[in-house]
Amino acid sequence: MDSFGIDALDQLLNNLMKLPGIGRKTAQRLAVFILKSGSEYTSRLSASINDVKQQIRFCSQCFNISEEELCRICSDSRRDRSRLCVVEDIVDIMAVESSHEYNGLYHVTGGVISPLQGIMPDDLHIKDLAARVENNGIKEILLALNPSTEGEATMIYIAKMLNDKDVRLTRIASGVPMGSHLEFLDSATIGRAISARQDL
Amino acid sequence: MDSFGIDALDQLLNNLMKLPGIGRKTAQRLAVFILKSGSEYTSRLSASINDVKQQIRFCSQCFNISEEELCRICSDSRRDRSRLCVVEDIVDIMAVESSHEYNGLYHVTGGVISPLQGIMPDDLHIKDLAARVENNGIKEILLALNPSTEGEATMIYIAKMLNDKDVRLTRIASGVPMGSHLEFLDSATIGRAISARQDL
Repeated sequence: MDSFGIDALDQLLNNLMKLPGIGRKTAQRLAVFILKSGSEYTSRLSASINDVKQQIRFCSQCFNISEEELCRICSDSRRDRSRLCVVEDIVDIMAVESSHEYNGLYHVTGGVISPLQGIMPDDLHIKDLAARVENNGIKEILLALNPSTEGEATMIYIAKMLNDKDVRLTRIASGVPMGSHLEFLDSATIGRAISARQDL
Repeated sequence: MDSFGIDALDQLLNNLMKLPGIGRKTAQRLAVFILKSGSEYTSRLSASINDVKQQIRFCSQCFNISEEELCRICSDSRRDRSRLCVVEDIVDIMAVESSHEYNGLYHVTGGVISPLQGIMPDDLHIKDLAARVENNGIKEILLALNPSTEGEATMIYIAKMLNDKDVRLTRIASGVPMGSHLEFLDSATIGRAISARQDL
């Protein structure tokens, strides 16, 4: 049951299995679903995959996704242009936006420094960040990289790089997430929450 | 974070969410992956979806998937043409084939009778089964529908329909699956396994 034995379907199966988190069983289910779906839907699905590649590019300033030279956020005059939030990925912009706690601009690094995976600062949009700070009157940079070892190292790297710039560097707080239970949290998270405890 | 705010990406998101078992979060992850993938891969993925719809049809005899008028199994001269295995779906053919215990032909009903869901015998390929038995010298029909209430009812319906035909009707055994633990099995399965117990 490793393949359908029919070229077109096996091709689809192999392509679906390259998607993240999609194993063979799920890919089989999806392939059969596509096979049985009306061609109206499958044409739309197929076309939307191509459309995304053709119509979407990256903002030349912050590297968010965009249909224009500048993304919606960078070209929105109501945003606070003195603040930059540094994130790893475009999905992190959506996560920060959904909090409604931030009204500045963004800068997407495209990942974190990870020598083990061969990702060095020059592979990311980190140099562009220094240039942006210099040329655009940025007063505060909020580092919102994911709290992993590589994320921490990247935040330290960025802090050093911007050492001589007159800009306030902040980072999002680590601690206990809302609605969580202490018993299910890892010790590093609890340790952070205790050492960063706040007065009531 | 309900949408990307970019038409092409939201279209893709909505189309991905129509796939079975793909919720919003998974669809977002897949959409971002597609956005970031090389266009070589995304073109292949998109084309393979269309190819499946254009190149694959259903076998005119057994309703398995096929590139030709007759599927590979129906046109394979080494198969035992006196036996038919009745399954609900094409994926069940693959499951039976992977057991290497069966060498006859198949008949895909396309589902089971379910008045509650509005699926009546005429919505399935059940009449075609009677015609096949009459015209093709079938000696044994192995019913391999999934063991649900509807599956049972459909097997009984088929048995009644073929009552006056000179054909041996069998069904796959219900019981304890290989490698399972009794403590985790439902009582209906254990009940079946006991009532169908075999002498050692």
